[in-house]
Amino acid sequence: MKLATLRTANGTRAVRLDGEVHVDLGYADLRELFAEDDWQAKAAAASGTTYPVADADFAPVVPNPSKVICVGHNYTNHIKEMGRDLPNYPTLFPKFADTLLGAHDDIVKPAETDALDWEVELAVVIGKQVRRADERQAADAIAGFTVMNDISARDWQFRTIEWTQGKIWEATTPVGPYVVTPDEVGGVRPALKVETVVAGQTMQQDDTGTLLFDPVFLVQYISTVITLRPGDIIATGTPAGVGNARDPKVFLLPGQSVTTEITGLGACVNKVVAA
Amino acid sequence: MKLATLRTANGTRAVRLDGEVHVDLGYADLRELFAEDDWQAKAAAASGTTYPVADADFAPVVPNPSKVICVGHNYTNHIKEMGRDLPNYPTLFPKFADTLLGAHDDIVKPAETDALDWEVELAVVIGKQVRRADERQAADAIAGFTVMNDISARDWQFRTIEWTQGKIWEATTPVGPYVVTPDEVGGVRPALKVETVVAGQTMQQDDTGTLLFDPVFLVQYISTVITLRPGDIIATGTPAGVGNARDPKVFLLPGQSVTTEITGLGACVNKVVAA
Repeated sequence: MKLATLRTANGTRAVRLDGEVHVDLGYADLRELFAEDDWQAKAAAASGTTYPVADADFAPVVPNPSKVICVGHNYTNHIKEMGRDLPNYPTLFPKFADTLLGAHDDIVKPAETDALDWEVELAVVIGKQVRRADERQAADAIAGFTVMNDISARDWQFRTIEWTQGKIWEATTPVGPYVVTPDEVGGVRPALKVETVVAGQTMQQDDTGTLLFDPVFLVQYISTVITLRPGDIIATGTPAGVGNARDPKVFLLPGQSVTTEITGLGACVNKVVAA
Repeated sequence: MKLATLRTANGTRAVRLDGEVHVDLGYADLRELFAEDDWQAKAAAASGTTYPVADADFAPVVPNPSKVICVGHNYTNHIKEMGRDLPNYPTLFPKFADTLLGAHDDIVKPAETDALDWEVELAVVIGKQVRRADERQAADAIAGFTVMNDISARDWQFRTIEWTQGKIWEATTPVGPYVVTPDEVGGVRPALKVETVVAGQTMQQDDTGTLLFDPVFLVQYISTVITLRPGDIIATGTPAGVGNARDPKVFLLPGQSVTTEITGLGACVNKVVAA
């Protein structure tokens, strides 16, 4: 199944993609849906109002997660290319619900930064509450996968040793368009092509199969520390090719379009606009 | 006013301290109260059910903030003592709602860490939604102040360059007991004695008047990046004297009591217990 949260005239609605239409699932958003024990059966069986796909206005795939946890330094190719040793532990940092955008929303470049950068990421969406999950529980807790563009204000990110202030800018981080269930992408450790295209130029390209810390491991690791709840999002890190690592550095400019795409999951396509 | 969120037989309730009793304000918690435009008048006027103070079971002062943002490296005395230059920007890192504890709750030491450390902090609680607040708007957005013990699992904190995974452990961080309005503590930049006592021994002692980045500045700075909402919490950093900086290092042990106190705000008094 491909599931989304749409903005409609009646507020946000959780939907299932059925060919040319989105079918209303009877919930305001995917967090509400995933809070149901048997959400898979309910989502598969629902036959509510339909909305033409062509008219879809995608909200962040989960508009109000209780937590968004992101991972740094996780693509083996990128780590090796940088000449670094493979880390023993994932590097974690946060985003907040207020940081998220829909898959096709404009990214309004804040006037306070001129170093807005892209990061395509495979994101895990949690479908079941877990704490200290073992491997099987962690796999079961994965509702599905989506695309996140972990937009980063590099100047603010590197003002101090903690990245948080460069990672949480209001309404900057597209996530969506769909949560795709694991059965559609080869399971809970999918090997999918990830790609970023900025203003027509391919900037990042890798394979999620090369993740050092895979989705199941990340659910286990993070749930050791804190409860993961339905609708929570884990962004699994980005491959080589970000603007900040180029020589000279390249950042997003108003007027440009940035596409972050993962095979089988779809794409976030966002225009950068001036504030 | 001194305001709190209590756990009662009817779920959590927002209350006002009135001598020997807590007066029910008609809201489930302080986040709900602070969402009201005229919450000060409503809180002052309320005359609902009363609960004896002696029976109080304090929830986290806001049980479900949309964001908790913490500041590192902020006490001038501590920075100078470490021989560091004063930083140009505050260092920010997160906690999550699931990380919080009530002011008198036990701190259950996770089996996965043996390096649980204390950090007494003046915490700002937001009473009005703000984005890109100017100085006056930032001052107006401060509902009041409370005490946070920013409990940190130092081993996990320093596994990677980002502190997040050592700072967000489930149900480890006491915050409370009261949100005290600025008029009771000398305004929005209060100079109050802060102190930590562990197993009877004073470990930290300083004055919130020596904060490099004061509460009003922090509201301005953080609201530049992201909307601050009613009930959001900003922890303003800790002074010298944490266990990790001692020689030899000292960490919290099951059976110990840790008291974090700020004059005029009260104290978090928490027993450390084994998992």
